[in-house]
Amino acid sequence: MEKKLTIGVIGGGRIGQLHSRFITNNFPQVKIKAIADVMADKISEWARGIGIENIYADHRPIIDDREIDAVLICSPTNTHAQYSIEAAQAGKHVFCEKPIDYDVGRIHQVLQAVETAGVKFQVGFNRRFDHNFAKVRELIQSGAVGQLQIVKVTSRDPEPPPVEYVKTSGGMFLDMTIHDFDMVRYLTGSEVTEVYANAAVTVDPAIGEAGDVDTALISLKFANGAIGVIDNCRRAVYGYDQRVEVLGTRGGITVGNDLPTTVSLSTSEAVLSDKPKYFFLERYEGSFIEEMRQFFDSIANNRPTPVTGIDGLKPVLIGLAAWRSYREGRPVKVED
Amino acid sequence: MEKKLTIGVIGGGRIGQLHSRFITNNFPQVKIKAIADVMADKISEWARGIGIENIYADHRPIIDDREIDAVLICSPTNTHAQYSIEAAQAGKHVFCEKPIDYDVGRIHQVLQAVETAGVKFQVGFNRRFDHNFAKVRELIQSGAVGQLQIVKVTSRDPEPPPVEYVKTSGGMFLDMTIHDFDMVRYLTGSEVTEVYANAAVTVDPAIGEAGDVDTALISLKFANGAIGVIDNCRRAVYGYDQRVEVLGTRGGITVGNDLPTTVSLSTSEAVLSDKPKYFFLERYEGSFIEEMRQFFDSIANNRPTPVTGIDGLKPVLIGLAAWRSYREGRPVKVED
Amino acid sequence: MEKKLTIGVIGGGRIGQLHSRFITNNFPQVKIKAIADVMADKISEWARGIGIENIYADHRPIIDDREIDAVLICSPTNTHAQYSIEAAQAGKHVFCEKPIDYDVGRIHQVLQAVETAGVKFQVGFNRRFDHNFAKVRELIQSGAVGQLQIVKVTSRDPEPPPVEYVKTSGGMFLDMTIHDFDMVRYLTGSEVTEVYANAAVTVDPAIGEAGDVDTALISLKFANGAIGVIDNCRRAVYGYDQRVEVLGTRGGITVGNDLPTTVSLSTSEAVLSDKPKYFFLERYEGSFIEEMRQFFDSIANNRPTPVTGIDGLKPVLIGLAAWRSYREGRPVKVED
Amino acid sequence: MEKKLTIGVIGGGRIGQLHSRFITNNFPQVKIKAIADVMADKISEWARGIGIENIYADHRPIIDDREIDAVLICSPTNTHAQYSIEAAQAGKHVFCEKPIDYDVGRIHQVLQAVETAGVKFQVGFNRRFDHNFAKVRELIQSGAVGQLQIVKVTSRDPEPPPVEYVKTSGGMFLDMTIHDFDMVRYLTGSEVTEVYANAAVTVDPAIGEAGDVDTALISLKFANGAIGVIDNCRRAVYGYDQRVEVLGTRGGITVGNDLPTTVSLSTSEAVLSDKPKYFFLERYEGSFIEEMRQFFDSIANNRPTPVTGIDGLKPVLIGLAAWRSYREGRPVKVED
Repeated sequence: MEKKLTIGVIGGGRIGQLHSRFITNNFPQVKIKAIADVMADKISEWARGIGIENIYADHRPIIDDREIDAVLICSPTNTHAQYSIEAAQAGKHVFCEKPIDYDVGRIHQVLQAVETAGVKFQVGFNRRFDHNFAKVRELIQSGAVGQLQIVKVTSRDPEPPPVEYVKTSGGMFLDMTIHDFDMVRYLTGSEVTEVYANAAVTVDPAIGEAGDVDTALISLKFANGAIGVIDNCRRAVYGYDQRVEVLGTRGGITVGNDLPTTVSLSTSEAVLSDKPKYFFLERYEGSFIEEMRQFFDSIANNRPTPVTGIDGLKPVLIGLAAWRSYREGRPVKVED
Repeated sequence: MEKKLTIGVIGGGRIGQLHSRFITNNFPQVKIKAIADVMADKISEWARGIGIENIYADHRPIIDDREIDAVLICSPTNTHAQYSIEAAQAGKHVFCEKPIDYDVGRIHQVLQAVETAGVKFQVGFNRRFDHNFAKVRELIQSGAVGQLQIVKVTSRDPEPPPVEYVKTSGGMFLDMTIHDFDMVRYLTGSEVTEVYANAAVTVDPAIGEAGDVDTALISLKFANGAIGVIDNCRRAVYGYDQRVEVLGTRGGITVGNDLPTTVSLSTSEAVLSDKPKYFFLERYEGSFIEEMRQFFDSIANNRPTPVTGIDGLKPVLIGLAAWRSYREGRPVKVED
Repeated sequence: MEKKLTIGVIGGGRIGQLHSRFITNNFPQVKIKAIADVMADKISEWARGIGIENIYADHRPIIDDREIDAVLICSPTNTHAQYSIEAAQAGKHVFCEKPIDYDVGRIHQVLQAVETAGVKFQVGFNRRFDHNFAKVRELIQSGAVGQLQIVKVTSRDPEPPPVEYVKTSGGMFLDMTIHDFDMVRYLTGSEVTEVYANAAVTVDPAIGEAGDVDTALISLKFANGAIGVIDNCRRAVYGYDQRVEVLGTRGGITVGNDLPTTVSLSTSEAVLSDKPKYFFLERYEGSFIEEMRQFFDSIANNRPTPVTGIDGLKPVLIGLAAWRSYREGRPVKVED
Repeated sequence: MEKKLTIGVIGGGRIGQLHSRFITNNFPQVKIKAIADVMADKISEWARGIGIENIYADHRPIIDDREIDAVLICSPTNTHAQYSIEAAQAGKHVFCEKPIDYDVGRIHQVLQAVETAGVKFQVGFNRRFDHNFAKVRELIQSGAVGQLQIVKVTSRDPEPPPVEYVKTSGGMFLDMTIHDFDMVRYLTGSEVTEVYANAAVTVDPAIGEAGDVDTALISLKFANGAIGVIDNCRRAVYGYDQRVEVLGTRGGITVGNDLPTTVSLSTSEAVLSDKPKYFFLERYEGSFIEEMRQFFDSIANNRPTPVTGIDGLKPVLIGLAAWRSYREGRPVKVED
């Protein structure tokens, strides 16, 4: 990346701050000129501390700033589509956190706006950029395992989000599993054609009372003939469990968790080793940097982004099918 | 085990020879007085070599031998029920290889005969006696993982059986997965209430042409509220893949494969380690000995056998439900 | 092995019973006709139970029995040389537990007697027959690691022997490390030319008071230019620690411990896995059987034994040099 | 760290650039005002790119700059002492790369100058700040393994430095092993009292012709009664091998290598996993950042530095003893 790039960040919550910090530390060619957040007061000290000069309570000044080349949309999900459309119409490249929206029609409007404007658009499926999973994809594409037969994703959080969050989250399949739906598409290079969601409430009854589930095994069929399963739980007491397994006609792949250390303590009782890295900030730090690097590169070198609008749409379609499957107790085809 | 025990073996094929050899080597108190096989000629040299005096082409002399306390039924599946009933009626304890039968009514006749006769009856689900899986069960029962949430079984063979075998095998769910259906019951201590079989033919089209599948992800619901999935494939090129994972409210358990050695070779290309032990003979040798030890103990000490007739029936019911699920493309309840 | 072989066992203690049991269970062609032990009364019930007909308080009846083809010498160390010589002179093949003797002149007498008699002679360095270490040797010999540079052996016991035993044991280097001296010769295919023993008493002061050490790092030079180190401790609270590492110009090899199970329990505190198999009986069971198989084969097929008299002599020479090194605080050359 | 800090970097080679980059990316409160390098022309573009305004060919302008609070000495070893003394005398805090010098008298002059000036002084033993080794130290200090008995360090490079470098490097014990001498002091909290260096040339005869060795096992005695061994090789074809093992009366600790990914590929041949991270830049990145964080913190909060001048002296004394041991073929006491 040679060219200087000026960006604005919309949304200064946890994920907006995370992206801002990683950009400041790793991309000297990229200047964050402005950040917008409804709680502008609360973030202004932090923002100035990392050199962001303009802090707004509203997103429009960023959209209207002709110096800004690209925006990062890190605001609440229900604003993603609106802000993406506005930014695209203003000729800005867009990096949008997942999901684009829960409404398929609304997602199509975003994709349309992006296409009309001819700007870059990338969705925040950061796990594609993880060192482990990127290598699995590479091995699969190189033919190391032959033709795919079985794909298994384990994705468990160390603790559930607050029930208040759960209520507006779109439910586990659209909030949490959506990353895994993207992962299986990324790894297999094939589309999910049918899902069957076997789910339960085993972590917290309040999650069930809020109409959601917290534990699931989602069975998948792929267009290429492979089958798969995603295993989710909102709480694994031993930490963030992020693993993948693949079986193909020529071999199998497994991916273990990243651990804080390789230290192992042998006592008279047992051999003790580290639990997985605590949660997504620790586990996926490298992937957040790498996704941004590739976003900036796609702008600088006018190349397609590595996670397109279609890649943002498909996991939502799968998630909606998973919800229908769970509610109707039967396998459901994934359709647009 | 103090008392001397005299037994007869019906069926001198691979599994019959395996049991006979392990018994000869490990149980000095047990005398194999006779073996019956339709190919008596073929096995007589081997049988005499390990000290079996009587070799018959027919099973009846064993049933009729009043000195024989117990019989091992290792003959083809379609004879299991008949021989079990005859042996029970003759007052002999019965160890019957899995499955008892594919016909549920026929299995009930066996259970009835056994109960009427008041003899011991044990089904050959040897994997329950495996060092790894027995420890998982023990940990679960001790409360180490709290309340069960997710159970995952990986069970893949190194190579598929001949298609001729497949045709009479009852199909993958009754021939291969039946061990895994038993395993999940054993590990969870709970009954499977519903199955959904996501299956495909990815190994050999001839298996599909024979009406069977060779790759499957079978989604399960348990009476205790947990959910599970069994992952099967008739061929994993890297060998016999036998693993289990459990998630509970207080912890998780994983079981890796047993390896021939712990040797690891680091070269300029990669770090290379051993593939899993080749197949069930290598992998489950200890479990075959242990299941027999417990069978003999249950006779000697008049205790219940560790794998009862009901334990023989249930996996067949689950397997039949799995077949229905696969054929009808929907989840199916497991019922008697 | 086709031919029937009749053997006698001299010494019915732990190791004599272990060999007898493994032979009875695994080698139908081998008949243990007699066992001799000064405590004949104490072992007679056990011996009859596994089918040994003759139990003597003295070794001579075995030496004098013309039906006996080979003897296993499992008696106390100070009788090994004498019984080996008597057996050889009586024309019997000899399997002698390690060490042959602590006196080099006495060992030479044994080797002389064996050569004169033209009988087979094998020393009980069972670890050569371990699945892990045998594979390391095979990899080295195949050239997988190129030219050897560094060899490291870790060999720690779960608990020290009684101090009374220590006093007559020849000291750690001749009693415990002797196995490791043999191991490095076996793995490298090269002779140890110099040792430096860095040792201490860290486990039990009483061991030090008895003139012995309980912890050591023994630095080695090999004739082929490689260097090595053996790490010993009489007590590792986590169990029997038996590992090897090799570095060569084309690669490295590591060997981990054998574990009772592959089960791993992840809790909110840590990931817990199994300690190594407890001690040599558990860890080296397979090697005891395999060394005997090869001993019987070398007799049956008139082939050299896999652990010769020279292989019995060399580790004693190294051990004596290690003692001199420790006492004089300097490296010492290994010489006959 | 609250206070702003202005620093200068002396030496713009690989390690100087590495520190500069990490500081720029991670410590917004620290300003690198100037860098000095004899090849000022060559580094000026790079230096300006990361925001360093002043690039000098000589170190004096940095020493003389009254705005500069601290200097990082990253120049060739033979200038470390001189520049450290000058910087201290100018009242600047000093971070000095290892080794301070190879001449013990010269090191004492540095320590004297630092003490007189009352400035902070830290030596660049970065591995103390590695996540793995820091945890081992913490476990040892917490008593998790009881009283230390054995310490083993494996430290092998992926490839040897150029022979030209070797000639002026002080030899392997002072150039490479010096890190390991520091590591054993750090881990054990005890001093090395005696060394015996068993070394060889097995990698490249040219290294031997230059008077150096490339392979070594260095046996150690510690003041606390423990013993240890360091295993070094200038080339391990599988990469940078950095491991530690500790045995204590209550347990053992092992530390494995950090791997680029946790991906494991199982084929019909073997199970393949990643080689260790390539070399010190990849492996110890985190430790370089952490050592600097603690250096800056010790200045900001007027606390002792975590690696003192004595910590810089001791490994040199051990290294010199190791050279004497190797040359004289005997154990040598470590003395000032």
